[in-house]
Amino acid sequence: MNFLVIGGDAAGMSAASRAKRNQPDMNVTVLEQTMDVSYSACGMPYNISDPSRDIDDLVVRQAQVFREKQGINLLTGCRAEAIEPETRVVRAVDYSGKQMEFKYDNLLIATGASPIMPDIEGIDLNGVLPLKGLSDGRNIKAYLNNHDVRSAILVGMGYIGLEMSESLSKRGIEVIGTTRGFMRNYDEEIAEVVKQTLAAHDVSLYTDYVVEKIEKKGEKLTICCGGKKLEADMLLMGLGVWPNSKIASDAGIELGSKDSIAVDRRVETSLSGIFSAGDCADAYHVVTGEKVWIPLALVANRAGWAAGDNVCGKNVQLQGVAGSAVFKVFELEVARTGLSVKEAEAAGFDPAAITIKARSRAHAHPGASDIWVHMVGDRKSGRLLGTQMVGKEGVVHRIKGPTVALHAHMTVQDFSQTDLAYAPPFSPVWDPMLTAANQLVKKL
Amino acid sequence: MNFLVIGGDAAGMSAASRAKRNQPDMNVTVLEQTMDVSYSACGMPYNISDPSRDIDDLVVRQAQVFREKQGINLLTGCRAEAIEPETRVVRAVDYSGKQMEFKYDNLLIATGASPIMPDIEGIDLNGVLPLKGLSDGRNIKAYLNNHDVRSAILVGMGYIGLEMSESLSKRGIEVIGTTRGFMRNYDEEIAEVVKQTLAAHDVSLYTDYVVEKIEKKGEKLTICCGGKKLEADMLLMGLGVWPNSKIASDAGIELGSKDSIAVDRRVETSLSGIFSAGDCADAYHVVTGEKVWIPLALVANRAGWAAGDNVCGKNVQLQGVAGSAVFKVFELEVARTGLSVKEAEAAGFDPAAITIKARSRAHAHPGASDIWVHMVGDRKSGRLLGTQMVGKEGVVHRIKGPTVALHAHMTVQDFSQTDLAYAPPFSPVWDPMLTAANQLVKKL
Repeated sequence: MNFLVIGGDAAGMSAASRAKRNQPDMNVTVLEQTMDVSYSACGMPYNISDPSRDIDDLVVRQAQVFREKQGINLLTGCRAEAIEPETRVVRAVDYSGKQMEFKYDNLLIATGASPIMPDIEGIDLNGVLPLKGLSDGRNIKAYLNNHDVRSAILVGMGYIGLEMSESLSKRGIEVIGTTRGFMRNYDEEIAEVVKQTLAAHDVSLYTDYVVEKIEKKGEKLTICCGGKKLEADMLLMGLGVWPNSKIASDAGIELGSKDSIAVDRRVETSLSGIFSAGDCADAYHVVTGEKVWIPLALVANRAGWAAGDNVCGKNVQLQGVAGSAVFKVFELEVARTGLSVKEAEAAGFDPAAITIKARSRAHAHPGASDIWVHMVGDRKSGRLLGTQMVGKEGVVHRIKGPTVALHAHMTVQDFSQTDLAYAPPFSPVWDPMLTAANQLVKKL
Repeated sequence: MNFLVIGGDAAGMSAASRAKRNQPDMNVTVLEQTMDVSYSACGMPYNISDPSRDIDDLVVRQAQVFREKQGINLLTGCRAEAIEPETRVVRAVDYSGKQMEFKYDNLLIATGASPIMPDIEGIDLNGVLPLKGLSDGRNIKAYLNNHDVRSAILVGMGYIGLEMSESLSKRGIEVIGTTRGFMRNYDEEIAEVVKQTLAAHDVSLYTDYVVEKIEKKGEKLTICCGGKKLEADMLLMGLGVWPNSKIASDAGIELGSKDSIAVDRRVETSLSGIFSAGDCADAYHVVTGEKVWIPLALVANRAGWAAGDNVCGKNVQLQGVAGSAVFKVFELEVARTGLSVKEAEAAGFDPAAITIKARSRAHAHPGASDIWVHMVGDRKSGRLLGTQMVGKEGVVHRIKGPTVALHAHMTVQDFSQTDLAYAPPFSPVWDPMLTAANQLVKKL
């Protein structure tokens, strides 16, 4: 039995390892086009912030370990070029240009996603750097080491852009952030808190700013939008990613949300025996029941496991994603789960929402700070639809409560009754989320 | 309409405030036997640790505010002595010894709980101090100010004992902890982590130690158990509390779990028009569906609100408690929710459990520490029954996830699929709770 995996990052290696553990005699082959496998892409901003750390610290498991300890036939520097479903063959080319063919019984497409690089003048200039894969991180660290980078422009202020604004500031680099919209999937009050923190750390923020072209004069890079020119020593592209699904659509596999590869709850594609997992594949949203494309690490790992189980004859069905995301930016923790008001409206709900400000610790307990909770519920069903939070402590882990509530399709009323235990160093008697729920109940 | 409340702490004042807000023309009277109302008892260990802070910082709202701003007829120094349900009268005595009578249409008994003081020789000696009410906190602070307290014995190592061990250590006082059993409602591995942390902070711990008598020689207090004598400058009694339910049972009201006052989901007692809330009353357990007595602050506040609503003709029904509790001891956060293995067996479940050790942050992220997760599930139904955790960060808020899962009667399998978002500063890709759930699923 041949299990072939295209892509050797989180989803691909999770699937390969899982299948091999399930059935040690299975023939498991992984084709990875780069030389890097199994690394923590999410850790890059924190690694880049520290000149003393090697980017390869982020490698979770060496290729050699997969090969020698786990018996996985892992080929790095080997790019899959085409899938031929009729003959169950994948054609590939290795780093030397040699054409290769791989037979499979089951196939996993775990090709991930690529950074969006807009088709504008100057996008190829030296110093214009994307941040997605480990090699991008390597390039950025090398550029920082080899150039006198005193200022950097972030093009795009999504999670990576926000994390990088902290990362570069820590290295003493002046940061300029440009973005079309700012935290558009977040409540305005929540986004405002982040904005103020960026300002407090001297990050200049230009919203409604769409880069039209990039120019280089000497060592300086210049971007412009309308009449507004900005200049820096480095340009980090963080405009998001798009799914690497072309190899799948070329093979006749159906695409789903945002041209990602459509999979069922068993992460199988429209072609039997071909699975997909990770940043290239879509997933069910537990709140709406609809397909969405939210490329995040846990989803990739979980779907990889499911693929590795299901190719071994198990029947693992995934519930899907809840739209959870958390990040740190300077001293702030930011968290969301479920739907924003706009997303809820788009999904056909009749949302009501509330944003409250509370304290992170009990009355009179020293060290307390502000914490904002935004909560969205459905007027028709009373269901909790989403929660967002920002604050200096207790935000990221707190969101796990409403996340679980979303999986359980709980009402706001029922959530407001949960026994969220209290101790003075950690929250007021009424947890800020309960205060929000108590108030939201009245609006439903 | 007369709403009479016996007891002016969390539950009583919550109910009085809520009723008055619902119906401003309602005649709301509160009888409080001490001079203190509405304070954060849970905050006392943190206040006592700091000689510069006044214990009255813990007062959340002054009696005057209740009287003048909220129009509540609040009588402090007024002790309720008897309830006469036939005539709907409560007899009381004020601080001067004057007998008083109060008519009621609806009555709330919010008499709280009292510290257990064993009937042993020397229990009344100066320097032997309980810690429950604000006056106890005041006494302890005064004793510390007026005596050269270099060492203290904690009799009982429940939540208060553990919190006080940190509190007194911070004041440079040598702490000796004595207890019959140690964290008996917790998994052994979890308890062991706490034990080691106490030892690291030079807290001497004597388990299987039941104080038989107390003696005083000069300024020193001595306790003994069998042949083992221990000596210190102060003795803090933290053997737990018992519900102040006698006034209720004397009036013919049914008692429930551990002689607390039995209430229904509307927090009404066995006698119509008489409600009970707070540390004196029982509650439904959301996992077992049985009545339990778990006197904690959130439960008291929530039940007080429910009483204040229900006396105004609303029909608020409480889901109950999940057995959640969290505390801090030195650098550790400790949290539990739901049932321990023993509690699960006693409730008729067929529990399986797992304890795992994971890291608090992602692979290669600096500052990570160990985090232990103990998870209990039911073999028959697959249901999640309980979770316990200990670690230096991310424990107390993390427990909110499984707490919500317990309210939703979620299976361990379903919990293992929740979208608990990840970012490197906060957890590994697989949250430690998901790792525990993934492993527990295999044992069910």
